[in-house]
Amino acid sequence: MKIIVLGAGVMGTAFTMPIADNGHEVHLVGTHLDGDIIEEIHETGVHPRLRSRVPDRVTPHPIASLGEAIRGADLVVLGVNSHGVAWAAEVLGPLLPPQVPVVMLTKGLHGDGSTLRILPELFSAHLPSGRVTNVMAIGGPCIAGELAARRHSSVVLSGRDPVALRTLAQALRSPYYHVWTSTDLTGVEVCVALKNLYALAVGLVIGLLEQEGIASNGARMHNLAAAIFAQGLYETAYLVRLMGGRVESVYTLPGAGDLYVTCQGGRNSRMGRLLGLGMAYAQAKAEHMPSESVEGAMLAEAIGDTVRTMIRTGALDAGQIPLMLRVIDIVCDGAPVNIPWEAFFREVN
Amino acid sequence: MKIIVLGAGVMGTAFTMPIADNGHEVHLVGTHLDGDIIEEIHETGVHPRLRSRVPDRVTPHPIASLGEAIRGADLVVLGVNSHGVAWAAEVLGPLLPPQVPVVMLTKGLHGDGSTLRILPELFSAHLPSGRVTNVMAIGGPCIAGELAARRHSSVVLSGRDPVALRTLAQALRSPYYHVWTSTDLTGVEVCVALKNLYALAVGLVIGLLEQEGIASNGARMHNLAAAIFAQGLYETAYLVRLMGGRVESVYTLPGAGDLYVTCQGGRNSRMGRLLGLGMAYAQAKAEHMPSESVEGAMLAEAIGDTVRTMIRTGALDAGQIPLMLRVIDIVCDGAPVNIPWEAFFREVN
Repeated sequence: MKIIVLGAGVMGTAFTMPIADNGHEVHLVGTHLDGDIIEEIHETGVHPRLRSRVPDRVTPHPIASLGEAIRGADLVVLGVNSHGVAWAAEVLGPLLPPQVPVVMLTKGLHGDGSTLRILPELFSAHLPSGRVTNVMAIGGPCIAGELAARRHSSVVLSGRDPVALRTLAQALRSPYYHVWTSTDLTGVEVCVALKNLYALAVGLVIGLLEQEGIASNGARMHNLAAAIFAQGLYETAYLVRLMGGRVESVYTLPGAGDLYVTCQGGRNSRMGRLLGLGMAYAQAKAEHMPSESVEGAMLAEAIGDTVRTMIRTGALDAGQIPLMLRVIDIVCDGAPVNIPWEAFFREVN
Repeated sequence: MKIIVLGAGVMGTAFTMPIADNGHEVHLVGTHLDGDIIEEIHETGVHPRLRSRVPDRVTPHPIASLGEAIRGADLVVLGVNSHGVAWAAEVLGPLLPPQVPVVMLTKGLHGDGSTLRILPELFSAHLPSGRVTNVMAIGGPCIAGELAARRHSSVVLSGRDPVALRTLAQALRSPYYHVWTSTDLTGVEVCVALKNLYALAVGLVIGLLEQEGIASNGARMHNLAAAIFAQGLYETAYLVRLMGGRVESVYTLPGAGDLYVTCQGGRNSRMGRLLGLGMAYAQAKAEHMPSESVEGAMLAEAIGDTVRTMIRTGALDAGQIPLMLRVIDIVCDGAPVNIPWEAFFREVN
């Protein structure tokens, strides 16, 4: 296959490893934000943030060469960030024959003020009017650096067409890249988007523990972190069902697996720590992580107003998502951390 | 309330903290294995393994005083280990008025060669013939040392009678001990038993990483651990449904929450590491953890034969529990670690 990956961030680039190893012809096209990365790959063969050598089968391109690179492509993979989805659809639309499927690595949800949408729907909505493209997505616990190091990584390829899923999964699978398939595109996308927000919430505990210290008997705060982890999955299940997804996605790779891996460190955890230490979000962001994308906070900002509106109109039940609402308050309004225990696990019993 | 806790291990003793703080009259009765512990609490007021002061409201007793201590009790709490459940029923049976409910802290499953049973059923089966006692259970992510240090801990009290659950949860709750209720006794008990086995499986990755080392780009093996974590929950959901429980228990505190906390360290993880390093189970146990209870391995031993029989008779589908079967092979037969990727996540799609 000829595969175009648009977006040369860590995930887009790491994804080129298994597909290049599988013998596909791979073209990695940087966005206008990736100019330096593409240049560095050209010069040294190494992705600067991934600190890994890009396979020889992968041809790097600047965004200006997209039109040329995409000619004859069998598959386009989107590695842009959540802010780049509409742009990508608008750029790709005129270049992309309708029969070429798209696979999104991008994670997020879109709030338009009154409803929440998964990103494959946002992408499709920005394609030329009337265009029907098979948009699939990959989700699951996959730290880019580990995939780039060819360490065992397990993901779910999701979409609406089971035959297309099976064929494509076969083409993507490698001895270290384990690809399952799911027709629950909505469930998978909701899970993998929300995990960033809930990983930030679990990360709060790192800061709370630093403040309070280890107890005299050696006790830490794993019980607290685990309760937040579980409440996050509970709320994820509520939203997955509400948006038409299946709960199976919540307790498998996209939900539990991806939340687990995202809690093992990374930017959401680091921001959670700062907030747990008592810093206001704006200060934490400006002073400690000014140029870093904290995806959990980006999600809170992207859907905060929409979620609040949907609660006012009765489209969402505030009692089912108290932890999400607290994270939105923390990120959007600078509210202090104050875990709403009494509101957790409403449905149990 | 007058509450008797039978079993002075770390969990039984830690449980006395919130109930004593709530003003109940608490009696901690050691089993015949807990003689030294009870003596030490008498002398120093401190539980030796928990390294925490036992509240003054808690009266320690040796097993010989059980009959005296239990007189007028409103509640009996079982803190014995999984091997002690039948014994506890036989000892308590003649002493316990039928209207006094029992709450089990003990985790495990019982395999009798042809079927699997949750421990509350095993306990009831060993009560005097015809006796009907309300047996409830507490599950969820609760490391004993953290509860003893009065750090936020969240659990589910489960049983068949919603009114009794609500009343008792109210009596147990404290500002740091968060108690929800669930009528899914089967689901909760299956989840909290299996988490030990799957935490051992996640722990394998610690050893595998030590063997392989950190990659040149800094990559570890969190993706691998997360996939095993998710497969564990997938298999848990299969068994919960099969035994008549509800999947809600899998993605909340008893399943995801308790597995998460159990993966943060402890004996299952330490055994997993040794196995991941390539040691055979018998050698790892004998040389490194001779006198320690590794609950995940104990569960594999307790249910291994029964699970294999149930697969032969068609009562269990081997394709739904490949990870459990591998852990059983490792623990019961000394099989090497070899992750059965191709068999994971059978139902997805």
